[in-house]
Amino acid sequence: MKIRIGIMGYGNLGRGIECALKQNEDMELVAVFTRRDPKTVNILTSGVKVYSAEDVEKHKDEIDVMILCGGSATDLPVQTPKLAEMFNVIDSFDTHAKIPEHFDNVNAASEKSGKISVISVGWDPGMFSLNRLYGNAILPNGKDYTFWGKGVSQGHSDAVRRVNGVLDAKQYTIPVDEALSKVRSGENPELTTRQKHIRECFVVAAEDADKCAIENEIKNMPNYFADYDTIVHFITAEEMKKNHSGIPHGGFVIRSGKTGFNNENTHIIEYSLKLDSNPEFTSSVLVAYARAAYKLNKEGQKGCKTVFDIAPAYLSPKSPAQLRKELL
Amino acid sequence: MKIRIGIMGYGNLGRGIECALKQNEDMELVAVFTRRDPKTVNILTSGVKVYSAEDVEKHKDEIDVMILCGGSATDLPVQTPKLAEMFNVIDSFDTHAKIPEHFDNVNAASEKSGKISVISVGWDPGMFSLNRLYGNAILPNGKDYTFWGKGVSQGHSDAVRRVNGVLDAKQYTIPVDEALSKVRSGENPELTTRQKHIRECFVVAAEDADKCAIENEIKNMPNYFADYDTIVHFITAEEMKKNHSGIPHGGFVIRSGKTGFNNENTHIIEYSLKLDSNPEFTSSVLVAYARAAYKLNKEGQKGCKTVFDIAPAYLSPKSPAQLRKELL
Repeated sequence: MKIRIGIMGYGNLGRGIECALKQNEDMELVAVFTRRDPKTVNILTSGVKVYSAEDVEKHKDEIDVMILCGGSATDLPVQTPKLAEMFNVIDSFDTHAKIPEHFDNVNAASEKSGKISVISVGWDPGMFSLNRLYGNAILPNGKDYTFWGKGVSQGHSDAVRRVNGVLDAKQYTIPVDEALSKVRSGENPELTTRQKHIRECFVVAAEDADKCAIENEIKNMPNYFADYDTIVHFITAEEMKKNHSGIPHGGFVIRSGKTGFNNENTHIIEYSLKLDSNPEFTSSVLVAYARAAYKLNKEGQKGCKTVFDIAPAYLSPKSPAQLRKELL
Repeated sequence: MKIRIGIMGYGNLGRGIECALKQNEDMELVAVFTRRDPKTVNILTSGVKVYSAEDVEKHKDEIDVMILCGGSATDLPVQTPKLAEMFNVIDSFDTHAKIPEHFDNVNAASEKSGKISVISVGWDPGMFSLNRLYGNAILPNGKDYTFWGKGVSQGHSDAVRRVNGVLDAKQYTIPVDEALSKVRSGENPELTTRQKHIRECFVVAAEDADKCAIENEIKNMPNYFADYDTIVHFITAEEMKKNHSGIPHGGFVIRSGKTGFNNENTHIIEYSLKLDSNPEFTSSVLVAYARAAYKLNKEGQKGCKTVFDIAPAYLSPKSPAQLRKELL
């Protein structure tokens, strides 16, 4: 029998989950839930039903793990604890500062229902967090560096779109090569915000817009751009569609540390991602942890977990003996 | 109270453990055991006793975790199961083909004693295995690549030293740049042994030796060199000492995979290590897993584990709440 998966919310992430499930033979998509009118939502997989989010409780016994594909700002803080009262749940909550609070809320719900929840799954938080933890534990006398990009930042793209006279915009976060090289050399530099990342914007402006004013407003926008070296390009709507439709991302987690009785030896651990599609990769991580949630709950475990609390073997469809033989 | 660590075997690895313990404030070295005459073994840490390996049982109650620093060929297959009857133990058993058998032997002993054992800890097997597992689970439609180097291969250096007329030798394994680039491009190439790694040997020959014959014998040595492009340099004993005394190593684990409803997107996950000292880095991994073994046994768990079976949080001295706040 396959692990029965439900998807809550059908945007880029929900569609990514649907695609990832196709590649995992021990799992199957059984239902998609949406806040829109279900009749207006067309999904890729034939034969799978789309239901209203309001009716989710009726499907309690048909779903082993519910994967939540809402946003961290307003959806997940409400949805995850609520659905944890009925289902094993996974989310990709990524507001780093609010993780402890979200954990407590979701944990209380899962403890009550006797189900498993896994929060903040994806690549950052997620795989990048894991690499920070492993790096810290192995090289305690060292320093962490996280770089993001080259990739599209949704939040920064949105911020540019709100500027007067801007019709469309896409912002790429790009790690500075020189900073990466310094870190990789093991010299443990102190790096400012400006030294770590460049921000590059592609902007479609209204015909009568003052491009100079737009560029100025972007470059001086506090929090988003003022602390960075920012490049602004004006392009046509056609160029935007042709060259900037993808949602690539990626980045680097580097731990640089010393060992030896007198700290005489240097070691560099580097983990990097180069992703054609940010939501599809995030979805792939979520699906692997959905398998883990299912197995943990089958063992009788309950409560909220993060990637830190789950032994890697739970992510795989293979048995522990197979894993030791084939991958160790 | 600190976690009390014993070291069994005081070579490069044992010395590495001693250095790593200095950096972990929640742990302390309490004893070193050796098969040599303890009076002839001088360790770096003052105040710590060196005992005969034969007397290890007498110290059963003074040690929370014993870290085994013997070799995989003949030491560990005997030592680990034997010591698992008395202690929580960690080893770095690295004969990949014999891991399942070693696991069964050690597991039986630990189950009997009610202790925890963790085998095959280090970077390969170890951190590289973890990255193969995570990569496989996240991108099931993909391909794994492991490259080693640039670094010193002990086994290959030993093989060269056994050639007639060779006084000393050091062999470096070097990944081929072109192969790495192909893999990173996402084209999932099929690579032969020769296409993946180069072998470079530095040899000190006896004065009257036939260098041409030595070079020929090395390059055609079956299993070790015949399947590779091998470069042989003859150097003086002084050059050997000056330029080749270190034991650097490292390598790359790359998972390249596709996602999307029609496999239209490519993702590259890359984990790499650049290590000044192979034994000191291996030791640092062993020490982090010694902490995990201690915590697991405190919880009442027993039996043999590998890096696949241990949740990452166990490696850290920080609490789960701290980890969520600081590293997630």
